Amino acid sequence: MPQLRKDPVIGRWIIISKQRRKRPTDFPVEKFEGAGGFCPLCPGNESFTPHEVLSIPDDLAPNDGAGWRVRVVPNKYPALVIEGDLAKEGIGLYDQMNGIGAHEVIVETPDHNENFADFSVENMAKVFIAYRERILDLENDPRFKYVMVFKNHGRAAGASLEHSHSQLIALPILPQMIVSELTGAKSHYDYKERCVFCDIIRQEIDNKERVVCQNDSFITITPFAPRTPFEMWILPKQHSSQYSAMDDTAYLKLAEIFRESLQRLCTCIKDVPYNFVLHTAPLHSKGLDYYHWHFEIVPKLTSIAGFEWGSGFYINPLPPEEAASYLRDCLVK
Amino acid sequence: MPQLRKDPVIGRWIIISKQRRKRPTDFPVEKFEGAGGFCPLCPGNESFTPHEVLSIPDDLAPNDGAGWRVRVVPNKYPALVIEGDLAKEGIGLYDQMNGIGAHEVIVETPDHNENFADFSVENMAKVFIAYRERILDLENDPRFKYVMVFKNHGRAAGASLEHSHSQLIALPILPQMIVSELTGAKSHYDYKERCVFCDIIRQEIDNKERVVCQNDSFITITPFAPRTPFEMWILPKQHSSQYSAMDDTAYLKLAEIFRESLQRLCTCIKDVPYNFVLHTAPLHSKGLDYYHWHFEIVPKLTSIAGFEWGSGFYINPLPPEEAASYLRDCLVK
Repeated sequence: MPQLRKDPVIGRWIIISKQRRKRPTDFPVEKFEGAGGFCPLCPGNESFTPHEVLSIPDDLAPNDGAGWRVRVVPNKYPALVIEGDLAKEGIGLYDQMNGIGAHEVIVETPDHNENFADFSVENMAKVFIAYRERILDLENDPRFKYVMVFKNHGRAAGASLEHSHSQLIALPILPQMIVSELTGAKSHYDYKERCVFCDIIRQEIDNKERVVCQNDSFITITPFAPRTPFEMWILPKQHSSQYSAMDDTAYLKLAEIFRESLQRLCTCIKDVPYNFVLHTAPLHSKGLDYYHWHFEIVPKLTSIAGFEWGSGFYINPLPPEEAASYLRDCLVK
Repeated sequence: MPQLRKDPVIGRWIIISKQRRKRPTDFPVEKFEGAGGFCPLCPGNESFTPHEVLSIPDDLAPNDGAGWRVRVVPNKYPALVIEGDLAKEGIGLYDQMNGIGAHEVIVETPDHNENFADFSVENMAKVFIAYRERILDLENDPRFKYVMVFKNHGRAAGASLEHSHSQLIALPILPQMIVSELTGAKSHYDYKERCVFCDIIRQEIDNKERVVCQNDSFITITPFAPRTPFEMWILPKQHSSQYSAMDDTAYLKLAEIFRESLQRLCTCIKDVPYNFVLHTAPLHSKGLDYYHWHFEIVPKLTSIAGFEWGSGFYINPLPPEEAASYLRDCLVK
């Protein structure tokens, strides 16, 4: 019997359709076509990107030619631009404003061929620290309300460059997903006086079947109502609404669990394309009791994408309990 | 300067990024790989599908072997099943119910190679009438709250069979997109005592630049805040919340404008993959003043799909005014 499941935060229903059940090997993966050639993100080519806004040195090679481990540069083809004012305007029924914002690229490694999931914990933590540094810096700009951090890994997930990188977009508005989450989480808090995500974590730890892995600070689960097979959420166990409020040690703990989760995913589905998106409280909102930052990792398995993304309605052939079981049982080096 | 635009119904903001502007020829299209072989939707193979729930005869060949023009059958691999009760259940924080519903395939033509956009107006109207007939029939089942009608055209849009068909899913819940639309439209109505879609139509007719085509009953526009290049909405000019409340003549008028819109789209981008979804009021809700049924046609241009569908946040490289201009100016046979 298929199941209908409701996301407890935003109220989105999804179908778990066992009739369409699939095993990990049933998902074909579109390979990155042999790129080769010039890469603007490689060391030595720094002059081909706009001037960097942040550089984190490589501990092992601080005096080496380039010497950076993580480098953040403005996107050469930005979706939004930094100069100008918002010029909010109503046109009859419609609202628009200038596309003011920042669009930056986080170059995650100097090594063109290094896969994000294979980074050392220390090196992955540097990427997460770079996110924090950029969020804190952009928060100084009163025009911005939100910084959306995301990664497209693999061609099918929208990556246009092979060299491992993520992106951030600073926005003068709140994206739909955050508005929905804030509204749903606030409504739960108003009724129960508890954070809905803290409730989720408690229930998942107690129940066990959707837990992928955990350490003392973080937990990775397959959510109760996932949009796609192998969707994973990584949440801090301690309540916290702001990603950028953590100290360096916490990002090491995050990297530990993030690395393990991705390694498990990549063991289940070789060369899996995926997106991850950081969900955190709006800028300038200090310590919300009802919101809880987290990462959502969504594998992009082309064979199942359909009309869903246009309608907000999802059919998922793999129950999250089975996905978690695959992820727990696969080998991790 | 890029622009941020807000959808006046559901409040979703999108970015129109002129820096990433594209012309129609810049969108690569993934072709349907030579399918050939056995097709379960072709005449003569009726016994390979579950027993039909509706058949509309072909006027020109009423006594021919198969004799049908449009045929509706249950999906052989349904996402939901028709037998059983809902068994709604709370599991701690979570809500679930049995996946009760109907999942049907509308075979739109007996001709394996006939493209939906090339149907005659009369034949396309038969497809729209089949939608109405199935909605009215499924409305008799008190377990169902909504019938979602959609079409995946082309491999990249999720079609698994080449033979022209659409699908419907009868649901015991309301999908997220409809909840958002109803909420947004209700809020507009409470404030202004007017339907927001009627307001949109008035403003678009007055403004002209986003109008693709129209007849006396329907209008096709590129919406003010489109998620993708060439997104189109087809709306009845007269206020109406229920798709299924129209008489046969109206479906002919709808087919006229739908056909013209798709022909224009296919002239702009050859072999374009697309999804369309019918947005209509929930079952059993008679004559809502604040809601307005319509079709949303969303081309699936793989080069721009990214993390957006997972985050509800869209970057669109083509302003809808330019898309409408391309669509108006292209030749239509």
